[in-house]
Amino acid sequence: VARYAVLGATSWGVTLASLLAARAQVTLIVRTPEEAEQVTAARGLARMPDLRLPEAVTVGPPARAEIASDGLVVAVPAQAVRANVAALAPGWREQPVLSAAKGLELGSGRRMSEVLVEAGWTAPQVAVLSGPNLSHEVARGLPAAAVVAASDAAQAAAWQAALATGAFRVYRSSDVAGVELAGAMKNVIAIAAGAATGLGFGANTIAAILTRGLAEMTRVGLALGARTETFLGLAGVGDLAATCFSEASRNHRFGILLAQGVPPGEAATRIGEAVEGATTAPVALALAARAGVEAPITAAVWAVIEGRSNVGEAMRALLARELTAEAQRG
Amino acid sequence: VARYAVLGATSWGVTLASLLAARAQVTLIVRTPEEAEQVTAARGLARMPDLRLPEAVTVGPPARAEIASDGLVVAVPAQAVRANVAALAPGWREQPVLSAAKGLELGSGRRMSEVLVEAGWTAPQVAVLSGPNLSHEVARGLPAAAVVAASDAAQAAAWQAALATGAFRVYRSSDVAGVELAGAMKNVIAIAAGAATGLGFGANTIAAILTRGLAEMTRVGLALGARTETFLGLAGVGDLAATCFSEASRNHRFGILLAQGVPPGEAATRIGEAVEGATTAPVALALAARAGVEAPITAAVWAVIEGRSNVGEAMRALLARELTAEAQRG
Repeated sequence: VARYAVLGATSWGVTLASLLAARAQVTLIVRTPEEAEQVTAARGLARMPDLRLPEAVTVGPPARAEIASDGLVVAVPAQAVRANVAALAPGWREQPVLSAAKGLELGSGRRMSEVLVEAGWTAPQVAVLSGPNLSHEVARGLPAAAVVAASDAAQAAAWQAALATGAFRVYRSSDVAGVELAGAMKNVIAIAAGAATGLGFGANTIAAILTRGLAEMTRVGLALGARTETFLGLAGVGDLAATCFSEASRNHRFGILLAQGVPPGEAATRIGEAVEGATTAPVALALAARAGVEAPITAAVWAVIEGRSNVGEAMRALLARELTAEAQRG
Repeated sequence: VARYAVLGATSWGVTLASLLAARAQVTLIVRTPEEAEQVTAARGLARMPDLRLPEAVTVGPPARAEIASDGLVVAVPAQAVRANVAALAPGWREQPVLSAAKGLELGSGRRMSEVLVEAGWTAPQVAVLSGPNLSHEVARGLPAAAVVAASDAAQAAAWQAALATGAFRVYRSSDVAGVELAGAMKNVIAIAAGAATGLGFGANTIAAILTRGLAEMTRVGLALGARTETFLGLAGVGDLAATCFSEASRNHRFGILLAQGVPPGEAATRIGEAVEGATTAPVALALAARAGVEAPITAAVWAVIEGRSNVGEAMRALLARELTAEAQRG
């Protein structure tokens, strides 16, 4: 029987463990023996009542996790990836690894696949997963689709075979950078969309932000070597739309709280799980600057998070500025 | 003072009359003297309690409408455009005209700008308006953006100046066919998105339909001479996203009713106003066939409306088929 491991008892981590368990033995690696006991006793997470971990999933701390020869899924928040994989035994670096985190690393500016290579995996062993995949919906078995990208086509195919179910379709791509950049940047745009919701605006306003956000993501992505088609596919516009319009998205809810005047730190605390867009914003901004392209929505979100700008004013300036841009293509 | 007329006391018609009235005298042309009295007495529509027609708007039937020298906005449903403009005095054909209808004509397969040219306007007099503009939100003054396209740049600029407000931004394009095709086809995709909602699916599923719908619209549009950038802008992905995700969209609600087993005719009656996607579906399908490109989402929607296919089965087949397509680009 195939053996996989999932690192991180996040909403997405337990969901992925559950998908893999349809065909394999799965170890869910959590931080401590205490957390392992809790998750085992509850067969899941209190905040995900619809998900009950299958029998094939065992839960344990890193020290007790036997190396899974078919692969490791990294499902901790982006800023925790480096430290979490460093805590794993060296043997794990011989196995395939799949990043399921949608963020960019603060400080280094690295994409998650780059962090994994710096942590000891070879590039061909690394794959990334993205797409419009609100975890609560996937956990309930609702139809969804995702993209797995890898430089080695065999790795992408292996993860596709491991994860896909009738309801969860997985497609392959070779554009690792594009899939990662799209997945990371859309969370920043979703904060802006959430802020629009929080200011009392409607679907028209969110649609305008989404349109300009897609242009911004694509512009930055292309400058960094990604492919246009990725931004027009599930991992790009698909994930962006789901995140901008669904209040099930943590990034969207974070934007709503900012618009309600909740300080960023407190808003993040209230959300509970990682708000990837908030930490990705400054990194995406730096990458855009280095590539010489503008990222005004990302800049506005970061200015609000840093307290340099008021949500209402930032939104007004953004709508005034960004919607003029559309005209330039007319 | 500038003088405009708006043909049609639809939700969008009264909203546009109200926007124009910020700077001009406006005649709202309705079908009968009785309807004129009703709308005048209510200063709007019962179904739009947030909108009160400004003083500058007078309401009258076609026979009593003095020709507005600055232009006519056609805001009746797509299938009613030809008959409604035919009922206007010949002098109207000397004035600029703006189509605000998002549909394609049954039988002829024509876009609205083509119908207007067949009705006696010259092509340079015709402009079209589209974008993510749920009328109730625009009527409430929430931020929104639209695109005006015309072959004559001066016409586009004139309509931009006439309609734009601080909250309602209007941008110019020269891609008349693209703006019209995007506005018409997105209503069909929105019916599929509504059906997904009605089947109990979530944002992940809608996002997947939106992604493939955008590819379908773009493919058909390009084959018919439209430009890619239009489909990636406000009139394309922007309007598509607002319509797929908002239950304020009539097309979305129509899809929900179909999924609940309500027969198409009864569903249309319950919606009250025109469900443009339902009549546009067969026309878009014929245009796609003539252009030699596939339009599977549009085909599935039309098969359900015609009673040849069950919503649940059509959706299953569509998700299975369409999500495979993503892989082919990987």
